[in-house]
Amino acid sequence: MKARLGGDEGKHKFVLKTPKGTRDYSPKQMAIRESVFNAIITCFKRHGAEVIDTPVFELKETLTGKYGEDSKLIYDLKDQGGELLSLRYDLTVPFARYLAMNKITNIKRYHIAKVYRRDNPAMTRGRYREFYQCDFDIAGQFDPMIPDAECLKIVHEILSDLQLGDFLIKVNDRRILDGMFAVCGVPDSKFRTICSTVDKLDKMPWEEVRSEMVGEKGLSPEAADHIGEYVQLHGGLDLIERLLQDPKLSQNKLAKEGLGDMKLLFEYLTLFGITEKVSFDLSLARGLDYYTGVIYEAVLLQQENDHVDEPVSVGSVAGGGRYDGLVGMFDPKGRKVPCVGVSIGIERIFSILEQRVEASEEKIRTTETQVLVASAQKKLLEERLKLISELWDAGVKAEVLYKKNPKLLNQLQYCEDTGIPLVAIVGEQELKDGVVKLRVVATREEVNVRRESLVEEIRMRTSRP
Amino acid sequence: MKARLGGDEGKHKFVLKTPKGTRDYSPKQMAIRESVFNAIITCFKRHGAEVIDTPVFELKETLTGKYGEDSKLIYDLKDQGGELLSLRYDLTVPFARYLAMNKITNIKRYHIAKVYRRDNPAMTRGRYREFYQCDFDIAGQFDPMIPDAECLKIVHEILSDLQLGDFLIKVNDRRILDGMFAVCGVPDSKFRTICSTVDKLDKMPWEEVRSEMVGEKGLSPEAADHIGEYVQLHGGLDLIERLLQDPKLSQNKLAKEGLGDMKLLFEYLTLFGITEKVSFDLSLARGLDYYTGVIYEAVLLQQENDHVDEPVSVGSVAGGGRYDGLVGMFDPKGRKVPCVGVSIGIERIFSILEQRVEASEEKIRTTETQVLVASAQKKLLEERLKLISELWDAGVKAEVLYKKNPKLLNQLQYCEDTGIPLVAIVGEQELKDGVVKLRVVATREEVNVRRESLVEEIRMRTSRP
Repeated sequence: MKARLGGDEGKHKFVLKTPKGTRDYSPKQMAIRESVFNAIITCFKRHGAEVIDTPVFELKETLTGKYGEDSKLIYDLKDQGGELLSLRYDLTVPFARYLAMNKITNIKRYHIAKVYRRDNPAMTRGRYREFYQCDFDIAGQFDPMIPDAECLKIVHEILSDLQLGDFLIKVNDRRILDGMFAVCGVPDSKFRTICSTVDKLDKMPWEEVRSEMVGEKGLSPEAADHIGEYVQLHGGLDLIERLLQDPKLSQNKLAKEGLGDMKLLFEYLTLFGITEKVSFDLSLARGLDYYTGVIYEAVLLQQENDHVDEPVSVGSVAGGGRYDGLVGMFDPKGRKVPCVGVSIGIERIFSILEQRVEASEEKIRTTETQVLVASAQKKLLEERLKLISELWDAGVKAEVLYKKNPKLLNQLQYCEDTGIPLVAIVGEQELKDGVVKLRVVATREEVNVRRESLVEEIRMRTSRP
Repeated sequence: MKARLGGDEGKHKFVLKTPKGTRDYSPKQMAIRESVFNAIITCFKRHGAEVIDTPVFELKETLTGKYGEDSKLIYDLKDQGGELLSLRYDLTVPFARYLAMNKITNIKRYHIAKVYRRDNPAMTRGRYREFYQCDFDIAGQFDPMIPDAECLKIVHEILSDLQLGDFLIKVNDRRILDGMFAVCGVPDSKFRTICSTVDKLDKMPWEEVRSEMVGEKGLSPEAADHIGEYVQLHGGLDLIERLLQDPKLSQNKLAKEGLGDMKLLFEYLTLFGITEKVSFDLSLARGLDYYTGVIYEAVLLQQENDHVDEPVSVGSVAGGGRYDGLVGMFDPKGRKVPCVGVSIGIERIFSILEQRVEASEEKIRTTETQVLVASAQKKLLEERLKLISELWDAGVKAEVLYKKNPKLLNQLQYCEDTGIPLVAIVGEQELKDGVVKLRVVATREEVNVRRESLVEEIRMRTSRP
């Protein structure tokens, strides 16, 4: 990827690469990426979402105080005179800013765009500094858990459509977490930071998480052990019912509210027929500060060791939750607009599909060209240009080699290489007869087609069955 | 747009806005934008282009020395440790970097993405600091003027498809300009800077351009006057023939080459049937340094004063040209890859279409929802969720109000407001009978449809005629 260059005329040497943690997309990668986007957009539209777009940078102060410990990952622009700007870190904060600025209290929208994080890239595992997020959010004051359930249904639909293999959607609620912290004896002031530590449970074992709580964060060992008992719990409606009877949790107002809503959520998910892939999991915490209610994260599962062990997570591909306070942080009068949403992490999905394509040696077309306009003899460039112009004007996808006198063999080879299914060949005789020779690349079959019927014939032969 | 906020808890006041020169796109604006993108992408694909993507920022040194006087408009990122980065100024330099880095000598690709310029925004006229470019480029060693002619054909197709009114594509050649400068007595060292001044002719009268040449740039008045005679010339094949006979120009090697190729270009454009909208115009210069051959710019024309005067330009909507040296600037061995391309300036086009929609009071739908799942009685939320889940799983675009017991009137009103054509109503009786009441919003017609036929019935009624 790198190549040190010595510029001519004594210029300084420079490196020919993209910035750290970023990449180009080749035509083949774009073809895969667009098929993923199509599946996601189709799903978002199926659920009635509108689409918006916002600038790639925001005023620096718009992003300040929204991301907790992750704020250090924000890219700032250089002060070149004028406003202080930062690249967006996610699409959620710009969305909240958009709602407050336009006084919108009610919208269901999606937004697909790049976001930026000065993180340590792990590009083989699909972790980049510039990456796409595909966000779907529902803003507005509604009856509890109906939009929340729809978000989970959307994750289920997209991951099923993309055929990525088995997956699991973990669900929890910030209120249940906070209630749990309270009954475990965590001081109020430590809720957020202990929550951040719990969030690391998917990456490190409990022992390490516990030692961070006690060592770095100064939590009492008893409180940590108490938390340890709760965070290993996961299940469905049965677990919710059990915790609603838990002598300590049931006494905590926040936990009780969260558990009540969780029960309602699972009832709706039962109607949607997707509870099999959803797990109420007390270890799920999510890193960001702005969540206020239900939170969720979808992970892909991989069966290791021939079904001997439980399937293991190979990484998160979607996440989200409820953030009822964020819009109010922007509104001059602090008016709240309750929101719930989900973000699909396209890069890891893309990595998996790309590896799959590589492994299968499946040939992916990167153009949609229907026909190559060719000639068998010399001095027919003008005739080729005239014909291709007719085809373009009729809406046919057509190409021509940019050579005055290309060899027929080279023209046919170009079709083989790029997957063009048809060749329209003009020659002296065909011109006299008012026909074009149409060749099917796959079968080598050739037929003479009257020029005025050519467009129709090409359409017929290239329409999907 | 602006609202000064007093944050709670003693936070500093901040401004609720997007950065200077940028904007959000609302769902309605996105609907217009996507229709324009579709027209452009359809055209690019019709001409057999692949698609690529590159990061929004590049190493700062990648952009250095490519944009002449415009380099001051580049956005730099803050040095936060690590590489020095800048936001891309256009898509052409990243394309050249991509070709050199991947050793690609042959590609026809399009790229649609945002670019960034710290310019003085004139947002009412569609000039922004963050804006989209839609680029189509052909790289490779080919016979002269065939790809160049295709680029002009593409501009013609897109501007015709979008029905923006009358337009004109001005064409010139850097070699003709340089030859003209030489025969007018401009010293070699002043070619590029005098070229920049000529480029201002579309924004200021000749007198001001002349005085910049003589005053600021130190050109002799005689040379300036001589240039003045040439730059008022515009025409077609006839003018090319005349200049090929011009006693001075015809003696200049560069000018002769350029005029010869211009003649060839016009022959190809005649075959494409588009010369009527193309004008060979010696005043066209284009600002950027990297052009080496043919250059062009498309302007929209507006008839003023009821056909008394000639139509006047209301601004450039596309531009491009040949840049045969740019890839070589990145290649370690200086290997050249000849390139020609065109960039469609979407923002001005978008402004025009947006104003047209506003004026016509045409109602634009921002969702594609086919059916609202509703109920006339209370306590049917579960039944509505069950039904909508069936519809989603069958691929039907469906919505439901997020309320336990919405009034039927509100549900119908929602359809009116958002343009949803059908309502699927469940009620006690319908559930018993195994049917759903399907209501056509426009006609208020209602029919009972068997539940197992509902998907088919909705598809039939919402398929485009």
